[in-house]
Amino acid sequence: MSNTVTPIDPTALRARLDRAREAAGNAGVDALLMAPGSDLRYLLGASGSSFERLTCLVLPAGGGPVLVVPKLEAPGYADVPTDALGVELATWVDGEDPYALVASRLGRATNVALGDMMPALHVLGLRGALPDAHQVLAGPVVRELRMRKDAAEIAALRRAGAAIDRVHARMAEFLRVGRTEAEVGADVAAAIVEEGHAVAEFVIVGSGPNGASPHHSLSDRVIEAGDVVVVDIGGPVDDGYCSDSTRTYVMGSPRDADVADTYAVLQRAQAAAVAAVRPGVSAQDVDAAARSIIADAGFGEQFIHRTGHGIGLDVHEDPYIVGGNALPLEPGMAFSVEPGIYLPGRWGARIEDIVVVTEDGVEPLNNQPHELVALPA
Amino acid sequence: MSNTVTPIDPTALRARLDRAREAAGNAGVDALLMAPGSDLRYLLGASGSSFERLTCLVLPAGGGPVLVVPKLEAPGYADVPTDALGVELATWVDGEDPYALVASRLGRATNVALGDMMPALHVLGLRGALPDAHQVLAGPVVRELRMRKDAAEIAALRRAGAAIDRVHARMAEFLRVGRTEAEVGADVAAAIVEEGHAVAEFVIVGSGPNGASPHHSLSDRVIEAGDVVVVDIGGPVDDGYCSDSTRTYVMGSPRDADVADTYAVLQRAQAAAVAAVRPGVSAQDVDAAARSIIADAGFGEQFIHRTGHGIGLDVHEDPYIVGGNALPLEPGMAFSVEPGIYLPGRWGARIEDIVVVTEDGVEPLNNQPHELVALPA
Repeated sequence: MSNTVTPIDPTALRARLDRAREAAGNAGVDALLMAPGSDLRYLLGASGSSFERLTCLVLPAGGGPVLVVPKLEAPGYADVPTDALGVELATWVDGEDPYALVASRLGRATNVALGDMMPALHVLGLRGALPDAHQVLAGPVVRELRMRKDAAEIAALRRAGAAIDRVHARMAEFLRVGRTEAEVGADVAAAIVEEGHAVAEFVIVGSGPNGASPHHSLSDRVIEAGDVVVVDIGGPVDDGYCSDSTRTYVMGSPRDADVADTYAVLQRAQAAAVAAVRPGVSAQDVDAAARSIIADAGFGEQFIHRTGHGIGLDVHEDPYIVGGNALPLEPGMAFSVEPGIYLPGRWGARIEDIVVVTEDGVEPLNNQPHELVALPA
Repeated sequence: MSNTVTPIDPTALRARLDRAREAAGNAGVDALLMAPGSDLRYLLGASGSSFERLTCLVLPAGGGPVLVVPKLEAPGYADVPTDALGVELATWVDGEDPYALVASRLGRATNVALGDMMPALHVLGLRGALPDAHQVLAGPVVRELRMRKDAAEIAALRRAGAAIDRVHARMAEFLRVGRTEAEVGADVAAAIVEEGHAVAEFVIVGSGPNGASPHHSLSDRVIEAGDVVVVDIGGPVDDGYCSDSTRTYVMGSPRDADVADTYAVLQRAQAAAVAAVRPGVSAQDVDAAARSIIADAGFGEQFIHRTGHGIGLDVHEDPYIVGGNALPLEPGMAFSVEPGIYLPGRWGARIEDIVVVTEDGVEPLNNQPHELVALPA
């Protein structure tokens, strides 16, 4: 994976590091131990890959940050303004113990918070080097920062949303009867990059019965006239912020007689959930706004997942729009609103927009028409 | 990520599950808890992706396997012959507790081994649901199986090696003066797929000074006459087994006067390390075979990484060919032999073959010429 640096000025990054340390302290955590991925990208403006060698950003609540990194990976962080950020670079070579190196920078630590995606290999390695420290997840600490997007982040998400909208707007170029899902998917992936993304991170083309499997991706099934087709696509733009939008298409007139009426229920539900979004409303209430409409119409059992997930530097992050999450929404939170109805063996549909909570309501970042889109058969 | 099923017959998979359970028992572990990725692919013939929802293959040392999977991800495992394998499918939906579900299938467990790449999110979630179970890594258990490739796996690696050799053989089509590393990389990536890989997993083109940074990937640097260029490429073929091979090229005559002599040292070192491979020799002795030649020539400080890594369903896996690893090599083990010499700010070189240990020696799976390859300037 190539290392790219977000064009974030060091002052903004320094503020994030300070807020992260403060949040750690508030959570009773002595240090955050972050692994490569979106958290490092958020805090340092860059991240390398993570294989089996430990790279770890050590963020003590009461001390200076240290980036522990294999010596041969250090050039990948050359663009990180470590001096301006007050970050010490501590390299190690094959044969040395990186977990002991982390421990040496921590001293006494009672509670350490580990990045949510840090591999077990490193979780247990750190446990061995810090046997008296209780391990918790850093997610609850870092999400407090990452959930509340600043203006620059919202602008990035807006740009990502517009880019994926342009791909959906072009869908008739790719999605045609007689082609396989995989052939369609390859063209869609190319378009995702053409329209401004760094990479096509995911391309789901669920045609006919495959649309009833929400995480079906691509197969050799041939698109047929009458198929309902779920297209769920997205990926990061250059600074790492992600798009994710789903639209449902039909090839000519739908084969199944119930499509129009069932889809109308879904469209009402998705619109109601988006309309429910404003500061102070809970995440679970947004989920309920969609779910109640779908359940009242008799399709409760066919809506088999949460209404949405947060989005930012990761495609899936906090806040999750799911029953049981009482978190009150605040301005700057960004998440998907994507209910679906799935009829196994027959067809499925999903409609997904990314939205941002504004001071008094909601701003959708995807604005393609929400109707079932008829393409030529 | 799409789910693909390796064309492995259920009998072979069942034997792997049985050997895994046996290895777990021998290691004093009550159960293996495996997350999506190469371990699942090895044991079930398929794997989905892993985001924040828990998918976990529970393999009790003394009981039947259970695949805990989110209901909406279950169709992705539809091609796994669960009945023939004796694997129970236990699905869960958003709002339920998947960690409690795992615990319910385990009963009393004193030691549980977690897949090395399982995210901390799940490591700590499982610890909460099984508070009395001591957590260890599954790597040491599973690698006992995965390190020893059977004939079908070696055939797959042979096919992958031949495919990446074909890309290196075509390098003059892509690597030309006046192009950027990124432009070259894009063409190489396309060729990697054309020549039979499922995806171009990594493409490193390190030209001039960038060749001195082993994990530099691609940049906008323009290739110049006189540049030494390190090209390290590979990826999985369709059944998941990986290729990984490095060759070093020079654009016309080398700019730096020391290239020919220094490269000759590297070539001798890499050849000596390959020649040292046979059953009974330790991994660290293979590393020493390369390192001693390089150090004797005065470049010890410029060889800044281990000699090699195992390869199979992962690009990096056991055994690691590194100082300190006393593991005796056995037939069926597959790994890279890739010493390098890096002169920061000037140039670097690396030569990498994948090799398999045979009954009485070694079989290289990459056979492109090992000389510094001169391309037109």
